[in-house]
Amino acid sequence: MAKLVECIPNFSEGRNKEVIEKIMDAVRNTEEVKLLDYSSDKSHNRTVVTFIGSPKGVENAMINMAEKVYENIDMTKHSGEHPRMGALDVVPFVPITGVDMEECIEIANKVGKTIGEKYSIPVYLYEKAASTPERENLAKVRKGQYEGFFEKIKDPNWKPDYGPDKVNEKGGCVAVGARVPLVAFNVNLDTENVEIADKIAKVIRNIGGGLRYVKALGVKLEERNIAQVSINLVNYEKTALYRVFEMVKIEAKRYGVNIIGSEIVGLLPMEALIKTAEYYLQIEDFCTKQVLETRIWE
Amino acid sequence: MAKLVECIPNFSEGRNKEVIEKIMDAVRNTEEVKLLDYSSDKSHNRTVVTFIGSPKGVENAMINMAEKVYENIDMTKHSGEHPRMGALDVVPFVPITGVDMEECIEIANKVGKTIGEKYSIPVYLYEKAASTPERENLAKVRKGQYEGFFEKIKDPNWKPDYGPDKVNEKGGCVAVGARVPLVAFNVNLDTENVEIADKIAKVIRNIGGGLRYVKALGVKLEERNIAQVSINLVNYEKTALYRVFEMVKIEAKRYGVNIIGSEIVGLLPMEALIKTAEYYLQIEDFCTKQVLETRIWE
Repeated sequence: MAKLVECIPNFSEGRNKEVIEKIMDAVRNTEEVKLLDYSSDKSHNRTVVTFIGSPKGVENAMINMAEKVYENIDMTKHSGEHPRMGALDVVPFVPITGVDMEECIEIANKVGKTIGEKYSIPVYLYEKAASTPERENLAKVRKGQYEGFFEKIKDPNWKPDYGPDKVNEKGGCVAVGARVPLVAFNVNLDTENVEIADKIAKVIRNIGGGLRYVKALGVKLEERNIAQVSINLVNYEKTALYRVFEMVKIEAKRYGVNIIGSEIVGLLPMEALIKTAEYYLQIEDFCTKQVLETRIWE
Repeated sequence: MAKLVECIPNFSEGRNKEVIEKIMDAVRNTEEVKLLDYSSDKSHNRTVVTFIGSPKGVENAMINMAEKVYENIDMTKHSGEHPRMGALDVVPFVPITGVDMEECIEIANKVGKTIGEKYSIPVYLYEKAASTPERENLAKVRKGQYEGFFEKIKDPNWKPDYGPDKVNEKGGCVAVGARVPLVAFNVNLDTENVEIADKIAKVIRNIGGGLRYVKALGVKLEERNIAQVSINLVNYEKTALYRVFEMVKIEAKRYGVNIIGSEIVGLLPMEALIKTAEYYLQIEDFCTKQVLETRIWE
């Protein structure tokens, strides 16, 4: 099976088209990678990029992209609503097919080391690549943001994994990590009462005693006048998609509320949907290699 | 998206390993195709082969394979339990990705023409490639078998689509066609009463007033002492897998019988499982391109 890694870097420029395109060209011009998507948000002043490729391809694309980011973005002049710690803010590597987490952790280390040394940027490894449990959570790593890191970096607990022990004024710091694919899954209810969606969200999510890999909140879809349980599934292998869906259904029932639909936002791995079909059809001993299309990657 | 066609030729030799391997080598040595599976049955004296590849690849592989079949199999000496009309018996081309039925019908015509002219074999196009409605059904085309074709071919209604109007004594005739992928799907019941499985099979299948693209029968799984509804789904795009499953469940209910599991036999296209997940999760507006893996075929 061909090896396939996904990378979803976020950088701190969402307004200047010319700069954004220069940075994207670095990905487009790298071999063995395919740019899938990039979207810029003006109020966040930030761009989220998705590309996939061979392990070597994504490593090279990320280093080429970093060069253009540090050439073109100046954090001393950056403002935007989204939390950020540097010009290149966060770089997760995600195993898709024929690659395990170990390999993505290796890529994170290689890319982190290169960025640290070549561009003099303090690098923090996070999630599965974290060097301490404290650094697993991205929100904790990024806490204080660019402005706060000039102090935070002096704390021995926050010594960078790679690069200098001093914030790069123009480039800031960066979080580089490895994680499982994230599935964004929203469930729509036949009520306009957002409080019900919120109550459901609170009990299905990990923090409320629910499913280990679920983050959720209730939101109102104004244009359709319905409430929605908005879910981030951070590990679809351990917390299956169908289990989340069935749990929403069970909780909705106590309010006399039904599910009227759901949506998958963006991309998801085939396996997440196959496991769902296997569950509902009660398929015994299914093997992903029975899916015809998987044979062409062998 | 890369173009991908599946071909599942059946030839009339299931005992002589040496001959079988010679024939398989013709597929193995063709570029742009991948041999996925082949299995020989001694009592049928027949081998079923599965390979996939580019349109040009499967066309070439099939012509190369035919050459070895006609060199090595002599129908005047063939006996076996399975109905057959020639050394190369049946050759269906199936669109998998990036290819439509029209293109598979074209391949069937090219391969049929070549086999007819190069090896002097009467060729009948069947299913979607059929030249008359009477030839759509393979069983009707093959009726009379090898032995009966010496008479059948004289009927103007059974003039071959390609090749001579006379049976090739050594090679017989061949059916070449195009069809949608077939899904073999079995549903296990918590009863040992095969009559119940048979009653369910009879009402869910097309011939009994059931679903248009379902063939089904009840069988007993002796080793597990349970009854099973054994299903061939001949068009999963029009008759969705989940609909078949739910219909078995509904019919089983009247006998107080439950489904204890199911199985997918062999290969199936990803789309069949994705549509199943979409149904049960009630996903609105899903697009197959949201499946990460599909991006590498683009």
